[in-house]
Amino acid sequence: MNRIAVDGMGGDFAPYAAVDGAVQAANDFNLEVVIVGQENVIKRELQKHKVTGGKLFIQHAPEVVDMGESPVSAIKKKKNSSIAVGIDLLKQRDVNAFVSAGNTGAVVASASLRLGCLPGIKRPGIAISMPTVHGFSLIMDVGANIDPRPEHLFQYAIMSDIYARYFHKKKRPTIGLLNIGEEESKGTELLKETYKLLRDSELNFIGNIEGRDIFSGKVDCIICDGFVGNVVLKVIESIAETTIQVLKRELNKNLITRMGGLFLKVALSSWKKETDASELGGAPLLGVDGAIIISHGGATAKAIKNAIKTAGQAVDYEVNSHIVDEITKKE
Amino acid sequence: MNRIAVDGMGGDFAPYAAVDGAVQAANDFNLEVVIVGQENVIKRELQKHKVTGGKLFIQHAPEVVDMGESPVSAIKKKKNSSIAVGIDLLKQRDVNAFVSAGNTGAVVASASLRLGCLPGIKRPGIAISMPTVHGFSLIMDVGANIDPRPEHLFQYAIMSDIYARYFHKKKRPTIGLLNIGEEESKGTELLKETYKLLRDSELNFIGNIEGRDIFSGKVDCIICDGFVGNVVLKVIESIAETTIQVLKRELNKNLITRMGGLFLKVALSSWKKETDASELGGAPLLGVDGAIIISHGGATAKAIKNAIKTAGQAVDYEVNSHIVDEITKKE
Repeated sequence: MNRIAVDGMGGDFAPYAAVDGAVQAANDFNLEVVIVGQENVIKRELQKHKVTGGKLFIQHAPEVVDMGESPVSAIKKKKNSSIAVGIDLLKQRDVNAFVSAGNTGAVVASASLRLGCLPGIKRPGIAISMPTVHGFSLIMDVGANIDPRPEHLFQYAIMSDIYARYFHKKKRPTIGLLNIGEEESKGTELLKETYKLLRDSELNFIGNIEGRDIFSGKVDCIICDGFVGNVVLKVIESIAETTIQVLKRELNKNLITRMGGLFLKVALSSWKKETDASELGGAPLLGVDGAIIISHGGATAKAIKNAIKTAGQAVDYEVNSHIVDEITKKE
Repeated sequence: MNRIAVDGMGGDFAPYAAVDGAVQAANDFNLEVVIVGQENVIKRELQKHKVTGGKLFIQHAPEVVDMGESPVSAIKKKKNSSIAVGIDLLKQRDVNAFVSAGNTGAVVASASLRLGCLPGIKRPGIAISMPTVHGFSLIMDVGANIDPRPEHLFQYAIMSDIYARYFHKKKRPTIGLLNIGEEESKGTELLKETYKLLRDSELNFIGNIEGRDIFSGKVDCIICDGFVGNVVLKVIESIAETTIQVLKRELNKNLITRMGGLFLKVALSSWKKETDASELGGAPLLGVDGAIIISHGGATAKAIKNAIKTAGQAVDYEVNSHIVDEITKKE
């Protein structure tokens, strides 16, 4: 049975959402869950819940990394944070995976430092699943590595390919390089070099893609540096929020348009179900020697529960061994 | 009276949209319009329209730059394209401004080469007005300069400040640097250096902003490199299209949701009017020695008409002299 550690203190709604999600996961799935955090806080939170079976555990971690804290200072000063202790459990193989909705920079830095990279991998990256008109596309990297070399982006393509095969059930995922034009000669030196590596590989590389192709479902895996990926991700999140805000404002203007709002809600609910990001719960930090799922800071209990499920699947699918096999083959 | 040249052969709907827009501008506004392009093609197109007064002219240009053509090859091989001839009219001061919905890369390269930069300006950039929850924000650069130095971004902030003052009527526009976090220490070396230049300037710099702040209307001018700006712009365009596509699909599923679509149309029409991008018609290429407005490849006649109006305003507001004054002051 898989044993998954979850950061009980991480995220905007911690400890509430993290503990609630952990309890739901332990009750619903065939796995053990270890909540990492301040023991008294977690115990108090757990009293609100009904826990069945003996599948839920607490691992004490006295310190808490704040959401806005500098990752470098968090690593230096808080060696006993829920993030550090959770990742240590993973390093010692006391657990198979670690889930956190906490400070993303601190999770990435701690994991890189304490676990190191998988053999052959130069730098880890975060791969996020994005709803498109048709199912999901993967974007990698969305913030772990803001100044990558061509080799890093090439390895992100290899890791994305594997993740899309196992998680999105694509047989031979298409790979696109996010650029400002389709021609091979477009973009920065980084992208021109990466293009050559991808073109000469065995991956199903379809060439450069543009910002407008992200939602069309044209490509299964979108490769970019962590700076561009992070900006794009936040733009997309904010557009969703802005659209809802503008719709609400406009739809509330009079009775007729208010009725439109009700109809719209019905119309969109089925698409929302198909593409609800909280169904996946989080994004894997691929390339480190251990399974880590990073959830959104605003993760709900449902998102945490599903992130724990996703973590268990990453272990079952042996994503990391497949990555090592593929990287070793390339060298 | 201002005299504006418009590229009659540029854009996905050329010559139809360009000529139609030029005719409307000449009829409606107090300015002269010179359509640049293949004389027989433009003349044939003009026969469909009723032109009043003597305010519309044709300047023959035998060659056409294709939308997908490499800018470098277009400049080398097509010295008599509508883009080259239009920019030459501007250089010789036969016209006050040039408008094109053609190959953006070719317009930027031709303008840089033939007109050069304004005194003190190192590199030109494209500044686009983006609808937000409250009015417009400016994003600069969205594609002219994909590998800028800190000084370039700093000058983009100075130019954006001026443009936002005159075009968006902001008294003291706020300036934000697009980054992956708000702290001064965030981001690439380029951004850390640019941050210092902006912090120590007299501009109304509010610090780093994130992708999620673009639509909130939190900041009047958003400064970024042309690669990130271009990707973000295309992501935004595609989300608008995807949303409409998904809404149409979902709303057509049954009679009830189809009615929702009708209500929604009513609700959104007022916001659309406020923030319709075709009201501005195009984005200025700021920093070159001449007024140039770049329209979207898919520009309609209405967009071209309004781009011509915007070009006239850029001349009337003396945007370029204000830029030179400001840059000279800084040095």
